Amino acid sequence: MIEAIGIIAGTCTTLAFIPQLKKIWISKSAKDISTQMYIFYCSGLLLWTIYGVLINSVSIIIANGLTLLLSLGILFLKIKWRHI
Amino acid sequence: MIEAIGIIAGTCTTLAFIPQLKKIWISKSAKDISTQMYIFYCSGLLLWTIYGVLINSVSIIIANGLTLLLSLGILFLKIKWRHI
Repeated sequence: MIEAIGIIAGTCTTLAFIPQLKKIWISKSAKDISTQMYIFYCSGLLLWTIYGVLINSVSIIIANGLTLLLSLGILFLKIKWRHI
Repeated sequence: MIEAIGIIAGTCTTLAFIPQLKKIWISKSAKDISTQMYIFYCSGLLLWTIYGVLINSVSIIIANGLTLLLSLGILFLKIKWRHI
């Protein structure tokens, strides 16, 4: 039951980045996206993933690992289109 | 030691939203921000906070509770400035 809440929570906070990635991909614009946010965020997600491994929480590991991939995608597009 | 990693991770993923909130506040523009992302994200953060309470993880409760407040701020500005 507790792990189910963690899985739903992780699904929401992970899937959340899909519409953001899609939005900037389609519009080819990431002007309002903060580079600083995504640098901090990706660093934090890497640490959350390590934390999940240490406390043996599968939902923390999967949720943060996937969110890290999506956030790196957003950061990549932001840097790629920084002059647009 | 393990909780220290959780606290640093939570500090990064929470503080990350401050430059994003500041950026859209100063530019008065949130065009590239996805409303759908922040609706999903805020829902997920609320569930992560509940999950933290259930597994007695102080770092999960504080980190996600504060991130929820910052994300609600971004969502509020996005909705407020949706026609700009």
